[in-house]
Amino acid sequence: MLASTTPAYDALAGLQRQLHHLGHLGAIAGWDQAANMPPKGNEARAAAMAELAALTHRMRTDPRLEAEIGRAAVEPLDDAQRANLREIRHAWVRATALPDSLVQRQRLASSRCEHAWRTQRPANDWAGFLENFRPVLALAREEARLLAERTGLAPYDALIDRFEPGMTSATVARLFGDLRQWLPGLIEQVLARQAARDATEPLVEPVGPFALDRQRWLCEQIMRRLGFDFEGGRLDVSTHPFCGGVPEDVRLTTRFTPESFLGSLMGTVHETGHARYEQNLPRDWLGQPLAEARSMGIHESQSLAFEMQLGGHPGFAAMLAPLLAEAFGDQPAFAPANLQRLLTRVRRGLIRVDADEVTYPAHVILRFEIEQPLIEGTIEAEDIPALWDAKMAELLALDTRGNFKDGPLQDVHWPEGLFGYFPCYTLGAMYAAQWFAAMRRAVPELDARIGAGDLAPVFDWLQTHIWRQGSRWTTDELAVRASGEPLNAAHFRAHLEQRYLG
Amino acid sequence: MLASTTPAYDALAGLQRQLHHLGHLGAIAGWDQAANMPPKGNEARAAAMAELAALTHRMRTDPRLEAEIGRAAVEPLDDAQRANLREIRHAWVRATALPDSLVQRQRLASSRCEHAWRTQRPANDWAGFLENFRPVLALAREEARLLAERTGLAPYDALIDRFEPGMTSATVARLFGDLRQWLPGLIEQVLARQAARDATEPLVEPVGPFALDRQRWLCEQIMRRLGFDFEGGRLDVSTHPFCGGVPEDVRLTTRFTPESFLGSLMGTVHETGHARYEQNLPRDWLGQPLAEARSMGIHESQSLAFEMQLGGHPGFAAMLAPLLAEAFGDQPAFAPANLQRLLTRVRRGLIRVDADEVTYPAHVILRFEIEQPLIEGTIEAEDIPALWDAKMAELLALDTRGNFKDGPLQDVHWPEGLFGYFPCYTLGAMYAAQWFAAMRRAVPELDARIGAGDLAPVFDWLQTHIWRQGSRWTTDELAVRASGEPLNAAHFRAHLEQRYLG
Repeated sequence: MLASTTPAYDALAGLQRQLHHLGHLGAIAGWDQAANMPPKGNEARAAAMAELAALTHRMRTDPRLEAEIGRAAVEPLDDAQRANLREIRHAWVRATALPDSLVQRQRLASSRCEHAWRTQRPANDWAGFLENFRPVLALAREEARLLAERTGLAPYDALIDRFEPGMTSATVARLFGDLRQWLPGLIEQVLARQAARDATEPLVEPVGPFALDRQRWLCEQIMRRLGFDFEGGRLDVSTHPFCGGVPEDVRLTTRFTPESFLGSLMGTVHETGHARYEQNLPRDWLGQPLAEARSMGIHESQSLAFEMQLGGHPGFAAMLAPLLAEAFGDQPAFAPANLQRLLTRVRRGLIRVDADEVTYPAHVILRFEIEQPLIEGTIEAEDIPALWDAKMAELLALDTRGNFKDGPLQDVHWPEGLFGYFPCYTLGAMYAAQWFAAMRRAVPELDARIGAGDLAPVFDWLQTHIWRQGSRWTTDELAVRASGEPLNAAHFRAHLEQRYLG
Repeated sequence: MLASTTPAYDALAGLQRQLHHLGHLGAIAGWDQAANMPPKGNEARAAAMAELAALTHRMRTDPRLEAEIGRAAVEPLDDAQRANLREIRHAWVRATALPDSLVQRQRLASSRCEHAWRTQRPANDWAGFLENFRPVLALAREEARLLAERTGLAPYDALIDRFEPGMTSATVARLFGDLRQWLPGLIEQVLARQAARDATEPLVEPVGPFALDRQRWLCEQIMRRLGFDFEGGRLDVSTHPFCGGVPEDVRLTTRFTPESFLGSLMGTVHETGHARYEQNLPRDWLGQPLAEARSMGIHESQSLAFEMQLGGHPGFAAMLAPLLAEAFGDQPAFAPANLQRLLTRVRRGLIRVDADEVTYPAHVILRFEIEQPLIEGTIEAEDIPALWDAKMAELLALDTRGNFKDGPLQDVHWPEGLFGYFPCYTLGAMYAAQWFAAMRRAVPELDARIGAGDLAPVFDWLQTHIWRQGSRWTTDELAVRASGEPLNAAHFRAHLEQRYLG
């Protein structure tokens, strides 16, 4: 056997494989915690997860890695290996930028803040929340500063970069600035138009209750039609739906209430988008960063491609109608045209997670415009409510004054010290629209085929252009290779105008 | 803060805590593999489990441990710490006795043998099995030899010692020799007596089908009455029922078939015995070997205390009867007296796992009498069928000639290279009888209370004398402290005679 010409790279790849295997155990234990674990298991599970986190952190920050990465960079790597090394290096920089003591202080502060927030939110207790949130923010700023020093990025950009590598706040600001110009007007127009239609042709609401076992059957049917591979994954129930597990065994969760089925169904459709991305990542690179999802924004582009692009399509309502009749017995609300109106209904609301695809970006723009100066230090935690109120009025014409629980206290992100994530949701929506525009250019009969219940061209395109690419390219490269252009808001705007004003 | 006076012991205890936390992830992943995992997850799960095994093996065999154990032995430890160190040392000796290369060759050979066995067993292919089994046996002999060198025990004793520390084949031979004298005659007598009764008062068989969701409800009801804590555990379904998970979160499994409920019910009762032991191990030592179950034989004594000692008691049938009527609608078979006859029916059979408590020891004695010379090298794999046939004739008066699939091919233990485990089943049955004898001395009204559905005295006694003791004492010490005498067959014999001939 010849000696390897890439010993340093091989060693790094071996470490990645180890981390992949250990991460598998953490992923399954995390899913189990949400889907199965009885209450008395919590303490032991937390200790086990912390032990694994500490162990893998030591592996990721092994002092020998710096030299190894340096040596690998001058080894004769092929293009894919070089891309893999880029991802290894990216993760290594982030893992080693923060001292353990900071990570521990962050864990304590955010755990305290998040725990108190659970009761402070329903109590509308902004003042109480501030007490715990100030240290969380201070530590997030310190984290951003250290990451910025290490990466050469601006502090808030260094936080975004953990979820959306290569994305900067300047680009987000440009993209969101575009949205900001036309979105409030578009919302206004869509609402007027839907109100006019509702007046002449009233929407029919589904009449419950909807038996949980039938809802489960329905979700599984839809997942099958959306191509979820049940030989390599499961559907279970948890309080907060998510797509977990590992690419080889994707664990998707939903939740059911007897009063309504649409929320759980469309939540499942959303998670199925995440799931198909994971199930179709490149297997020949399994265990390496190259085989992982490109970024959170790209991940969200898959869930939104399923939930919004497909879920709001007339073809989806047509596919759904007979399944609903089979699940619950037929009723007038299940007529395809009525169903599609239910699935594309636009309403101004205070709560981000309840928002439709038209108003959702307003919630995200608002948070981005608060987060960024908060991390850069140009505003303080005390300034949040006034900014929130002003931006809600401006973007959604809603009055949120004094209503903290449905305002800045509504999300778990900030209590958990998670800054820089919010933009990914709307970047994902824009990417999804851009993918579908490219798909329509490649498959001119796309809408007719979706209308006929044939989703194969959608899945084929996503498979080829997104799923199989893993992290082979930077996000910008991926966007250009897939759609011929870098991310821009034009396709998202065209999509909303076509669907809601066309 | 004062410096610790036991730094070496503290370091060892810290390592045990780490191993406990990592073991938690392996236990949950193992349960998930059996209860949830979709087929395509198998390869990734196996790789993840192997990574964890390799990692914990490195931790368990760290070269620094030898000196640390030596230093800890001369530190000022209290009695409990000293007992804990004894267990740490026992595990360390076994972990370091075998070279990695042997462990790997064993894994390959047994995996190949077990995989082929799955089809060779139904095909009755003894010759084909031998091909794969010879290397498994050769490696088990090498393992036994190395363990023997390291421990000073005889080779087969060194294998027993992994499951039943302190137990020797001389003691097993003495105990089983006792059984061997009276068991065949007792079986004969019991069968004659049951046949006579069946002739005058026919047994009524339950009439199915039995809906799976009602069976599940029934199992959960029985588990609750047997004290299983559902806040710290679950019941799920797997192909091979087991009690898994961790003490803080016990994962019990069963399996259901619509034709019959007794097998799944009594399997669940058996696993609940294991589960209560785990759920009630000493929590103040959690994470240390001292807080772990004493041995496989003692573990089996708990499952058999539940399944056999309690399950065959008239009080159990009385408790069960109304639950069965509630679960499936009443029927003549559910009359308590008939139920108890069903639960204590004795039949000679070829299959160990289907055996009742009277004939079960015959299956175990046979295996022990073959395993021991097999490992010691005085017989070869080729000799197994003839010995099997002779011993089945002698112990159970059954002809097994040429029937390999219901003979030496029936168990997974040997294909997997698992030798020295079989005795634990019958040691457990003897321990269980000994515990109940001690319980009756301590609580003279025991049978009346069980008869009235009050199981508290049973659980209190087991809690005090077995569960809470963890691994505080050697197995012999535990037996003497709990029951006043070392393990002997007299109580088991008295139990069988009282129940089946009394």
